[in-house]
Amino acid sequence: MSDAAPPAGLAADLAVVILAAGKGTRMISDLHKVLHPIAGRPMLLHLVASAGALSPARTVVVTGAGREQVEAAVTPLGIATALQAEQLGTGHAVAQARVALAGFSGDVLILYGDVPLVSAATMRRMVERLHGDDAPATVVLGFRPADPGAYGRVIADASGRIAKMVEFKDATSDERAETLCNSGLMAVRSNDLFGLLDRVGNDNAAGEYYLPDIVMLAAADGRASAVIETDAAEVAGVNSRGELAGVEAAWQAERRARAMAEGATLIAPETVWFAHDTEIGRDVVIEPNVVFGPGTVVGDRATIHAFSHIEGAAIGERAEVGPYARLRPGAMMGVASKVGNFVEMKKAVLGDGAKASHLTYLGDAEVGPGANIGAGTITCNYDGYFKAKTVIGAGAFIGSNSALVAPVSIGAGAIVAAGSVVTRDVAADALVLVRPEQTEKPGWAKRFRERMAARKAAK
Amino acid sequence: MSDAAPPAGLAADLAVVILAAGKGTRMISDLHKVLHPIAGRPMLLHLVASAGALSPARTVVVTGAGREQVEAAVTPLGIATALQAEQLGTGHAVAQARVALAGFSGDVLILYGDVPLVSAATMRRMVERLHGDDAPATVVLGFRPADPGAYGRVIADASGRIAKMVEFKDATSDERAETLCNSGLMAVRSNDLFGLLDRVGNDNAAGEYYLPDIVMLAAADGRASAVIETDAAEVAGVNSRGELAGVEAAWQAERRARAMAEGATLIAPETVWFAHDTEIGRDVVIEPNVVFGPGTVVGDRATIHAFSHIEGAAIGERAEVGPYARLRPGAMMGVASKVGNFVEMKKAVLGDGAKASHLTYLGDAEVGPGANIGAGTITCNYDGYFKAKTVIGAGAFIGSNSALVAPVSIGAGAIVAAGSVVTRDVAADALVLVRPEQTEKPGWAKRFRERMAARKAAK
Amino acid sequence: MSDAAPPAGLAADLAVVILAAGKGTRMISDLHKVLHPIAGRPMLLHLVASAGALSPARTVVVTGAGREQVEAAVTPLGIATALQAEQLGTGHAVAQARVALAGFSGDVLILYGDVPLVSAATMRRMVERLHGDDAPATVVLGFRPADPGAYGRVIADASGRIAKMVEFKDATSDERAETLCNSGLMAVRSNDLFGLLDRVGNDNAAGEYYLPDIVMLAAADGRASAVIETDAAEVAGVNSRGELAGVEAAWQAERRARAMAEGATLIAPETVWFAHDTEIGRDVVIEPNVVFGPGTVVGDRATIHAFSHIEGAAIGERAEVGPYARLRPGAMMGVASKVGNFVEMKKAVLGDGAKASHLTYLGDAEVGPGANIGAGTITCNYDGYFKAKTVIGAGAFIGSNSALVAPVSIGAGAIVAAGSVVTRDVAADALVLVRPEQTEKPGWAKRFRERMAARKAAK
Repeated sequence: MSDAAPPAGLAADLAVVILAAGKGTRMISDLHKVLHPIAGRPMLLHLVASAGALSPARTVVVTGAGREQVEAAVTPLGIATALQAEQLGTGHAVAQARVALAGFSGDVLILYGDVPLVSAATMRRMVERLHGDDAPATVVLGFRPADPGAYGRVIADASGRIAKMVEFKDATSDERAETLCNSGLMAVRSNDLFGLLDRVGNDNAAGEYYLPDIVMLAAADGRASAVIETDAAEVAGVNSRGELAGVEAAWQAERRARAMAEGATLIAPETVWFAHDTEIGRDVVIEPNVVFGPGTVVGDRATIHAFSHIEGAAIGERAEVGPYARLRPGAMMGVASKVGNFVEMKKAVLGDGAKASHLTYLGDAEVGPGANIGAGTITCNYDGYFKAKTVIGAGAFIGSNSALVAPVSIGAGAIVAAGSVVTRDVAADALVLVRPEQTEKPGWAKRFRERMAARKAAK
Repeated sequence: MSDAAPPAGLAADLAVVILAAGKGTRMISDLHKVLHPIAGRPMLLHLVASAGALSPARTVVVTGAGREQVEAAVTPLGIATALQAEQLGTGHAVAQARVALAGFSGDVLILYGDVPLVSAATMRRMVERLHGDDAPATVVLGFRPADPGAYGRVIADASGRIAKMVEFKDATSDERAETLCNSGLMAVRSNDLFGLLDRVGNDNAAGEYYLPDIVMLAAADGRASAVIETDAAEVAGVNSRGELAGVEAAWQAERRARAMAEGATLIAPETVWFAHDTEIGRDVVIEPNVVFGPGTVVGDRATIHAFSHIEGAAIGERAEVGPYARLRPGAMMGVASKVGNFVEMKKAVLGDGAKASHLTYLGDAEVGPGANIGAGTITCNYDGYFKAKTVIGAGAFIGSNSALVAPVSIGAGAIVAAGSVVTRDVAADALVLVRPEQTEKPGWAKRFRERMAARKAAK
Repeated sequence: MSDAAPPAGLAADLAVVILAAGKGTRMISDLHKVLHPIAGRPMLLHLVASAGALSPARTVVVTGAGREQVEAAVTPLGIATALQAEQLGTGHAVAQARVALAGFSGDVLILYGDVPLVSAATMRRMVERLHGDDAPATVVLGFRPADPGAYGRVIADASGRIAKMVEFKDATSDERAETLCNSGLMAVRSNDLFGLLDRVGNDNAAGEYYLPDIVMLAAADGRASAVIETDAAEVAGVNSRGELAGVEAAWQAERRARAMAEGATLIAPETVWFAHDTEIGRDVVIEPNVVFGPGTVVGDRATIHAFSHIEGAAIGERAEVGPYARLRPGAMMGVASKVGNFVEMKKAVLGDGAKASHLTYLGDAEVGPGANIGAGTITCNYDGYFKAKTVIGAGAFIGSNSALVAPVSIGAGAIVAAGSVVTRDVAADALVLVRPEQTEKPGWAKRFRERMAARKAAK
C-alpha cells in the first residue's frame, strides 16, 4: 500500500523519480549542474515545485557525481535520494530508486534534473494518460523540435499509440523523417516499472541500459504504450551555460508575459528579471532594467523605477521605488512610501508615507509613518561584532548627512539637524544638534591657491 | 465655412476625429487605455501631436468608458470631446462627433486612440488621396500583416479602387486569400460623412453600427472609394499590456535608428530608451542602459555613461554624465561640465567646466563655472516645509562629505573644508571650517575588540 | 630581402596593408570612421591585433581624409602610413603603399579598416592558400550574404578557381544569380602586386582604379586566382553608426558565448558588455546589466552583481562586486573582498576579505586585509591641485560617514568613530573621535512645525 491517499484528481498514488546523477562536465563548474539556478532557484527545485502540485507520495532524486551537493539541497526538503554509483544509462539510473520505492504502489513519473521547465500540467497529463481507456503500459512525453537532429524518434499512429521507439543512429531514413522526438520523460506503473527494467539489456555501442527500451519490452508482452506531445521549449535540457541562459530566457519571457497579462506595465519587458516567486500587483509600473531576487511582493499601483535591485522585500501599494533603489531581504515599504536613488534598505521597515529619497542606508531600522529621511543619512548598525537597531518615530525629520549610531531611538516628530552623529536617544518633538561652530578664515583659499599653483608650476 | 484657412498643402480644411470610447478591459488597469504612455507620453497625445502637423481646424475625441480621465487629458489642450454613451460600434462612435463638427466643412480624418503610431505623413497621404482625380468618396488605410488572420479584408484593384470591404467571418475563401486588410482608419468629406453614417445599419451578429459600411453605401450611390497602404507596424493597435510593450519597442527602435543616423553612437542601441521629445546632438556617445524621460536636450560631443537616468535636463556640449547619474527636471549642465557616479541633480545649474563627480545631491542649487563639488556633498534644500537655494560661486571647492544648509551662499573661490555643515554664507576666497578637534584614545580599539569577542563567545 | 624570418607556419614573410583613406561621411562624425571603437578599442586596432597574430614584417595603413587622426593612432605602434591624397579607388589606394613596402619581398594581405572583425584564422587561410599547389596569383576572400544585392560577384568553380570577377552593374542575370560575393580582401605576392596595379585602368563610370581588376589582369597572363569563403558576419563593413552597432553586437555575442563556454554563468548574456581584453575566470557569476571597460581581470568564483561598471580592475577570487559597484582603473580587489552598492574605487587596493559595502568612495587608497569600511566613507584624495593617498591598516574599522583627508594613515586595528573627519594619522589599535557634543532642544521641533505650518498657510 502507498503512504497516502491518491492526490486530488489522480487515479492512483504518485511517486516522482528525478534523475540527477550526471554532473555535467560541459558546465565547466564546481557546482552540480542541477543546482545551477534559474530565476534564483536551483533548477532541480523548479522540478520539485512543479511536481509538488501533484502531491506525490514519494519523491526520489537519483544522485551520482557530486552527490553531496545534491543531497544537501534536497534532504532538508524531506526528499529521498538514491545513489547511482556508476553511470550505466538512464534505465540503470531509474532502477536505483527501487529501494526508495519499496512498498510503494501507484504511478511513477520519471523526470530529469536538467530538464527543469516541465510544467505541473504536463506532468498531470502524463499520469492521467496512463489511466486512459487503453491502459498503456508506459506514457512517453514527445516533442517536435525545430531541428529533430539526432534525437531518438517516436513512431506512433495518430491516436498516440507507439509502434516503435528508435535511437537516431539505428533509424531508417523513413524513421528519421519522423519529427516526433523522445524527451526521455515517462510515466509507468510501479508494478510494471522494475520488472521491465530488469529485462533491459546493455547490448549497444555505449554498453548502457536505456530507459526507453521498456516501451518495446512491454510491446513484446502485447502491451501498448502511448505518446503525448508538448512544446519543445518545455523539455529544453541544460548541458552548458549557454543552454542554461536559454532556459532562463524562456522562463523569464513567460513570466513577463504573465505579469503584463495580469495588469502590470513593463515598459521594456525584456529588461525585467523576475525571481521564481515574485508577486506583482495590478497597475504596477516597472521601468526598464529591474532585477528581482527571491521573496518579493509588489503591491498595486506601486512604481518601480529603472535600475532597481529588489530581493526579499515587501513593497506597499502606491509605493515608489528607485531609480537605483536596492532593497535587500527584510525591506518593508509602507503604503505610498518612497525609496529614492542610491538608497539601500536591509531588515528595515519604512512606514506609510515615509520617504528616504537619496543616498541613504537604512539597515536594521524602523522608520515611522510620514518620517522624512534626509539625503546621505546612514544608520550605523554594525560595530564589527554585533548588529543593533535604529528606531525613528512617526513624522520625524532626519537632516541630511546624519549618522544614527545604533542602538538609538529618535522620537516621533523630532528633528535631527543636518550632519549630526546621533549616539544618544532623542526625545519626541526635540531638535538634536551635533555640530561645532562655523569658523571662517578670510582670504585663506586665495593664498592656498597661489601656493599650490606655485608648487604645481615648480614640478 | 470652416474655422480657418486650409492647412498648408491641403485642399480643404481638416477635422480629426479620434475614437477613444473603449476602455480596454484587457489592459486590466484603472487607467484608460489611450492614456497609457509610450515614450513617456500618453498614446492618445502621440496621435494628437502627429495630426497637429496637419494643422486641423478641429479635433474631436470621442469618449465613453473612463471619459473623465480622457477629458482631463485633452480638454486643457483645447480639444473637443463627444460622448458615446453606449458602445454601439465604430460607425455609431463617429456619429457622436456630429455636434462638435457642426458648421465644419472640409475633410474628416478618423483615427483610433489605441492605434498611436500613425505618422503625420500617412495622415497627409490619406487626406490628399481624397482629392485625387478620381475623387473617391472615402479613403481607407490598408495594411498587409504577417498573418492576416481575422482582419476585415479590402478587395481592391491594382489602382487602389475598392471593389468590396468584407468582414473576415463573411468572407469567401477567395476573399480570405486576399492579404490587404482594413486598419479602420478613414478619410471622408464632412459633407458625405454624416449622411452615410445615418444609413449604416446594425443588422449583424453584434448588433453594432460599423464604420466601414459607409464604403459600400457610397458604392451603392455609384461613388468609388480608394485604399492606400502602409506598413503593418504603423497601424499596430494596443489592447493589452503586451501589445503596449510591443508598440513601445517599435517606437524606440525607430527613434534609436534616427539617433544613429543623425550622428550619435549608441553602443547597445536596444538598451537606450528615449522619451518622445529627447534631442541628441552630433558625436554624442551613449553607453549601454540609459533611460531618458521627457524634456531632455543633449549637446554635441557629450558622453552619457551607462546606467544614467535623465529627465527634464539640458546637457551642454562635451559634458560628461554618469555612470549612474540621475538628472531630474531642471538639471542644467554647462559646457564640459561633469556629473559622475551616484550623483543626483534637481533644479540645479552646474556651470561650464564644473564637476560633481561622486555621491552627491544637488537640489535647488546654482554652481558657478569651474567649481569642484567633493564626494558626498549634500545640498540641504528642504526643511520639511519649504525648499531653499544653495549658491556656489565660480571656482569654489566644496570638500567631501559637506552639507550645505540652504539658503546659503558659498563665495567664488571659497573652500569648504571636508565634513563641514555650512549654515552661514561664506565670503569669496575664504576657507570655512566646521570641525571639532581630533581626539585619539590609544589602545581603545584593541580593548574593545577583546571585550566584543568575549561577549560574542559567551552568546 | 625582407626585414625578418617568415612568421611561424607561413611560407613567406608577410606585409599587411590596411585601407583607411575614406573618412566615412555617413558616420556624421568628427572622429575618423576606423577609429570608432568596438568593445572599447578603435576598430582599426582590432584588425592590427588580429593581423599581429601572423607576425607581419610590415604593416602599412593607407590614410586619406582625416589622416592626422589615423596617424596619431597607429604611428605610436610602429605602424607605417601611406597617404592617398585623392580618393581614386581601392587599386589606387593599395598602390600608395609602394614606397612603404620598398625592399619587401613576400606576401601582401590587403585589409579594410572598416571591416574589423576578420579573424587571424581567416587571414592565415588566405595567405596559406596563396601557397597552395596551384599557386594562384591572387586569393580573394568571398562570402555569401543573406541578400547578395549589389555586391560584386565571384564566378568560380567548385575548387575555388576563379573564372570571373564582375561588378554587379556589369553582371548578366546568370552572374547575378551567383551568391558568392567579393569581400574586397585579398592576398597577393609583393612581386606581383605593384606590376598588376600598374596595369589597372580607370575606364569605368566612377573613373576609379579597382583592386579586383588585378584578378582578371593576372588571368590575362594565364595565371589563375582562387577564392576562399568565410561567414558574412566576419566581413561585415561599417559605414554608419547603425552598422557600427551591428558589428559591436556581433562581437559581443561571440564573446558572451565564449565566456559561458569557459565556465561563467551569465544570467542574461545579452546584457553583459565585455571589452576587447576582459578576462573572466571559472564559476564566475555575472548578473544582468554589467558593463566592462578595458583592462579587467575577474578571478574564479567571483560574483558580479547587476548594474556594475568595471574598467581597469583586478577582481580577486571569490570577491563580490555590486550591485551598483563602479570600479575604475587601478581598482584591485583581494580574495573574498567585497565592494557593495554605490561604491566607487579608483587607484585603490582592497585587501583580502576587506569590505566596502555601501555608499563609499575609495580613491588613491590602500585598504589592508579584513578592514571594514563603513557606509558613506569618503577618502578625500584631492585638494584641487594634487592627489594624495589614504592608507588603512589591516583589520581597521572605519565608522560610517567618515571623511579621511589624505595624506592620512589609519593604523592596523584602529577604529574611526562614525562621522569623523580624520586629518591626522591614527595609531594602530587606537580609537579616533572627531565629534562634538550632542545637544538637545526639547520641544523645538514641535514649535518649528507650528511656525512653518502657519507660514505655509499664509502663503
